[in-house]
Amino acid sequence: MLIDSPFLAKPGKKHKLSAFKTRENGNFKDKQTGQRAAEANVAKMAPLQEKLYAEAKRSLLIVLQAMDTGGKDGTIEFVFSSVDPQGCQVTSFKAPTSTELAHDYLWRVHQNCPARGMFGIFNRSHYEDVLVPHVKGWITPEQTKKRYEHINAFERMLVDEGTTVLKFLLNISKDEQKERLIARQQDKDKHWKFNPSDLDARKDWDKYMEAYEELINACSTDYAPWYVIPSDRKWYRNICVSEIIVKALEEMNPKYPKVEIDPRKFVVE
Amino acid sequence: MLIDSPFLAKPGKKHKLSAFKTRENGNFKDKQTGQRAAEANVAKMAPLQEKLYAEAKRSLLIVLQAMDTGGKDGTIEFVFSSVDPQGCQVTSFKAPTSTELAHDYLWRVHQNCPARGMFGIFNRSHYEDVLVPHVKGWITPEQTKKRYEHINAFERMLVDEGTTVLKFLLNISKDEQKERLIARQQDKDKHWKFNPSDLDARKDWDKYMEAYEELINACSTDYAPWYVIPSDRKWYRNICVSEIIVKALEEMNPKYPKVEIDPRKFVVE
Repeated sequence: MLIDSPFLAKPGKKHKLSAFKTRENGNFKDKQTGQRAAEANVAKMAPLQEKLYAEAKRSLLIVLQAMDTGGKDGTIEFVFSSVDPQGCQVTSFKAPTSTELAHDYLWRVHQNCPARGMFGIFNRSHYEDVLVPHVKGWITPEQTKKRYEHINAFERMLVDEGTTVLKFLLNISKDEQKERLIARQQDKDKHWKFNPSDLDARKDWDKYMEAYEELINACSTDYAPWYVIPSDRKWYRNICVSEIIVKALEEMNPKYPKVEIDPRKFVVE
Repeated sequence: MLIDSPFLAKPGKKHKLSAFKTRENGNFKDKQTGQRAAEANVAKMAPLQEKLYAEAKRSLLIVLQAMDTGGKDGTIEFVFSSVDPQGCQVTSFKAPTSTELAHDYLWRVHQNCPARGMFGIFNRSHYEDVLVPHVKGWITPEQTKKRYEHINAFERMLVDEGTTVLKFLLNISKDEQKERLIARQQDKDKHWKFNPSDLDARKDWDKYMEAYEELINACSTDYAPWYVIPSDRKWYRNICVSEIIVKALEEMNPKYPKVEIDPRKFVVE
């Protein structure tokens, strides 16, 4: 499903990632106004989600990718602030376990795809498997290309079988990441989260940007497009992401199932 | 872990379920005051959960059982309103799939137990397997007793290996259920949820109460006790449940892990 959005990476075109902005404020005069707009957006999700759940025929998969500190966790908390937690499942893909490594890279992803009626949110995803190994040279460019094809075929199947797939790159600038990393270093309660290797990906920033550009050009499809969200401002990121989700749900137009019986005719004794 | 609470079904005693109240308001002068107290309670969870997650050594399992309309969904939404959704996993146990039925009844339960650092909430649980089959006579009283032993042994293992287990029976009166069922019948948007068989368990109300009484007497243990929560008033139920969860977390006293390195010494370039 293609949602009309200025942040859509139009399928079939060669995009420059640098052409997508990281710092935007739309037409909002200040942060407070923007936050209220984001909250109003996300509030529209709850009734649509309830219908999707009741209908139990289709599902919504939200894929979040970003550089470290890019805002994946914050986006998830924001989306969750409206929806019924029982209809929404988050999967955080971390370093694979030995059992996961013993299978193909899509195996654990497939296992965690949302069931009919459900929202699924992926905090990182199968796209990590065309990022790190690609940047590090652990797989050849040919293998990476093959993986793009696997991924497109896999998402095609998901979509054909009833899943709407929305993929978001939370796009932050290198300067913004620097600020956020330094802020995190200063917060003693966040020290347990710190891993010196977090800084490695930053050293490879340009290579990651190239890898993102390549995967977006290869895998932004009509059926499962990528949206590149300006994410230096958290509130604006929240507005953009929630707007696309709401539009997708409205287009899906889920309906309460027809009830053959009239519950009011049953006597509660 | 035993939390001091008027709603604890003290292990080793024979309890009458009818001795536990369903309608309580504590010392709260009205509903608004009660709701504020519930919100203040649940707000205490977030920092404790973050530490539990950071520590990543132990987990918390919250088991919710209730008659239909008893408030399991509402309790989950309430608990979730405070915690980080990525650190909290809800499992709703519905009618088992054919794969699940091909295994023992604890198989799917075990698969969904929370990992170290996580909150796990069970919406229904393995206790369904000593309720419905017991009430319906699908298993013999001897089989049911064996299952109590399996369950106690299983929970013993979970506790020994680092899971704190809190089990809540959301205790509503038959009259309150009637009101809630009728309200649900009147709400057209909830008709898809209605199943005439929902009324069957109500017809067997007394048998279910006996089955609950028996399982509480058999499975309220020092390491994984049952709490029987007065649940006719939703806000009071929320106060009681959150109070016990907060006390348990305080007793667990999770700590941020010691960080060997000083993140501030690393330069963000």
